Amino acid sequence: VNAPGLGGSIESLRASARLQDRVIRTPLMRSSVLDNLSNGRILIKPECLQIGGSFKYRGALNKLLGLDSEMQRRPIASRQVVAYSSGNHGIATAFAAERLSWKATVVMPTDAPEMKIMMVKEAGGRVEFYDRSLDDRVAKTREISARLKAPIVPSFDDLDIIAGQSTAVLEMIQDARAQGIELDDLLLPCGGGGLLAGAVLAAEAMSSNARIHAIEPVGFDDMGRSLISGRRECNVRRAGSICDALLIDRPGEITFPIIAGRVQGGVAVNDVDVAHAIRFAFRDLKVVVEPGGVVALAAILSGTMRCSNRNVGVVLSGGNVDGGLYGSIVASSESCPGIHEVQSDSV
Amino acid sequence: VNAPGLGGSIESLRASARLQDRVIRTPLMRSSVLDNLSNGRILIKPECLQIGGSFKYRGALNKLLGLDSEMQRRPIASRQVVAYSSGNHGIATAFAAERLSWKATVVMPTDAPEMKIMMVKEAGGRVEFYDRSLDDRVAKTREISARLKAPIVPSFDDLDIIAGQSTAVLEMIQDARAQGIELDDLLLPCGGGGLLAGAVLAAEAMSSNARIHAIEPVGFDDMGRSLISGRRECNVRRAGSICDALLIDRPGEITFPIIAGRVQGGVAVNDVDVAHAIRFAFRDLKVVVEPGGVVALAAILSGTMRCSNRNVGVVLSGGNVDGGLYGSIVASSESCPGIHEVQSDSV
Repeated sequence: VNAPGLGGSIESLRASARLQDRVIRTPLMRSSVLDNLSNGRILIKPECLQIGGSFKYRGALNKLLGLDSEMQRRPIASRQVVAYSSGNHGIATAFAAERLSWKATVVMPTDAPEMKIMMVKEAGGRVEFYDRSLDDRVAKTREISARLKAPIVPSFDDLDIIAGQSTAVLEMIQDARAQGIELDDLLLPCGGGGLLAGAVLAAEAMSSNARIHAIEPVGFDDMGRSLISGRRECNVRRAGSICDALLIDRPGEITFPIIAGRVQGGVAVNDVDVAHAIRFAFRDLKVVVEPGGVVALAAILSGTMRCSNRNVGVVLSGGNVDGGLYGSIVASSESCPGIHEVQSDSV
Repeated sequence: VNAPGLGGSIESLRASARLQDRVIRTPLMRSSVLDNLSNGRILIKPECLQIGGSFKYRGALNKLLGLDSEMQRRPIASRQVVAYSSGNHGIATAFAAERLSWKATVVMPTDAPEMKIMMVKEAGGRVEFYDRSLDDRVAKTREISARLKAPIVPSFDDLDIIAGQSTAVLEMIQDARAQGIELDDLLLPCGGGGLLAGAVLAAEAMSSNARIHAIEPVGFDDMGRSLISGRRECNVRRAGSICDALLIDRPGEITFPIIAGRVQGGVAVNDVDVAHAIRFAFRDLKVVVEPGGVVALAAILSGTMRCSNRNVGVVLSGGNVDGGLYGSIVASSESCPGIHEVQSDSV
């Protein structure tokens, strides 16, 4: 391993050693159909198959393992953490806590998807609800944290979280090289930037020169705009895309400086392209991907991201989607633009 | 490796060496939810993630590689194979042929699912239709085979096919051992018995004493009944289950003798349990599984197969399911018996 340019790349390797055998080393998938369509070599990392259904488990577990020596000094019933999240980070924290026989409390909005609430509970997590219009979720989380002496597990703006997420990209680069492939591009879904910042650390740690791209929903391209302006831009809207996992106000305070110097730029995809990519993953990959998790694949299938003669790594970042929404998307496959139309449009 | 009791176990190891790096080594998945529910250790092999969406690719590619030296002597345009299948075997043969730059013709009924026809075509396969009520598909296949000088690729009753399928179970046993787990039971979906016979060879090759169970749809339990009577029993019905991949007339001539002396017995599951298991795989594993591919998981979730304190290997054998059917099954998840009801009923 070369000497890393950033101290963070050491954190990435440390997280990798720590998480080995504790997370699923998700496979690198290929699809000859996708390669033919894009005229590139596409390597897909389905993190929807990760414990808890998203890459977020890596960061959460890495954070919790960092707290372990302190927790071991407490009585078992006092080993507690708290997170606020309406989605994948809450589920991930609950599963990570279950793994260590700790207790997790997840502060969720009353209107969180029923399925996501159910998954937190399945993992033995305790759910505390707040009303979006009445309550301050940060204040509520801090109150619970103080009362239970339970450390807060941040959703992305934290170096242990970022280092944990980086292991997904580290594995991609390693497993591609094991097949003799050097990745030219990395396409990553982007919300607060935890995965993207992790990718920067992983690329540093592996001395990879891959171009890194932030993929966002149209109308929520705060990262893409921030990369142009050089400062943390905000989204105007708070809702209005099916990509619920990616609707964050603006890039993180810790993630953005890591990302800014290294990431190529942003690409935005619309909900129609997202639905099409969900159907592609259903039919040709057989993995369940949620709207926010599939944006990088959507960027390829829509022709927005050109991959001709390039080796492209794509992360499918999560699969926690409501059965009603997912069912209506895949059931409409026959009547919607199929892959052959895409082929004639974009290749 | 111990000296195998059957010559076939050598074929299994040979297929494994031949297919290595040519098939996806699908991961072994775990679910803490499933382990808690069943009070066992359940290791899941999602072969729906295999190339072509089912384990059938292993057998088809192994068969084609066995024909390779002969094909190399032909001009490229004459490298052709033919298969008859309404589903996964046809898709697998088309993808295996594409891999070798050969041409595959798949003889399919006019009423085959649109999605399965599309997947054969996506892999560059040529589809020849026959009418179930008018045409003899075997005669038609033989005619095409003779005309094109294209060898027929059988769907299960062939030692190269069986040896190819065995590699799925070989990998399971190996990857479980790498985690320090010795499998006590293997639960396998059963149609003609190709995967089941392959499991017998794999268990021999690996000196595993795992009990092997054939899982079938209720009303199509020909293998279970054959294992009791000792001879190849037929199914009375030809249709009437959503598990289309498993509706075979009776056990194979070559598969059955391999299976008969070694397989524990059969277990049958109904379509309601199958739909429930599809929803479980959607929500907790994020893999798309077709009805016939999920029966082994259904046997656990329904409580039909007890797994208490046992290490149980389960194959999810395929995921080629129509979007309309799949969508309606997963969309109904909220209103159907959830996992917590199953828990209180069966544990």
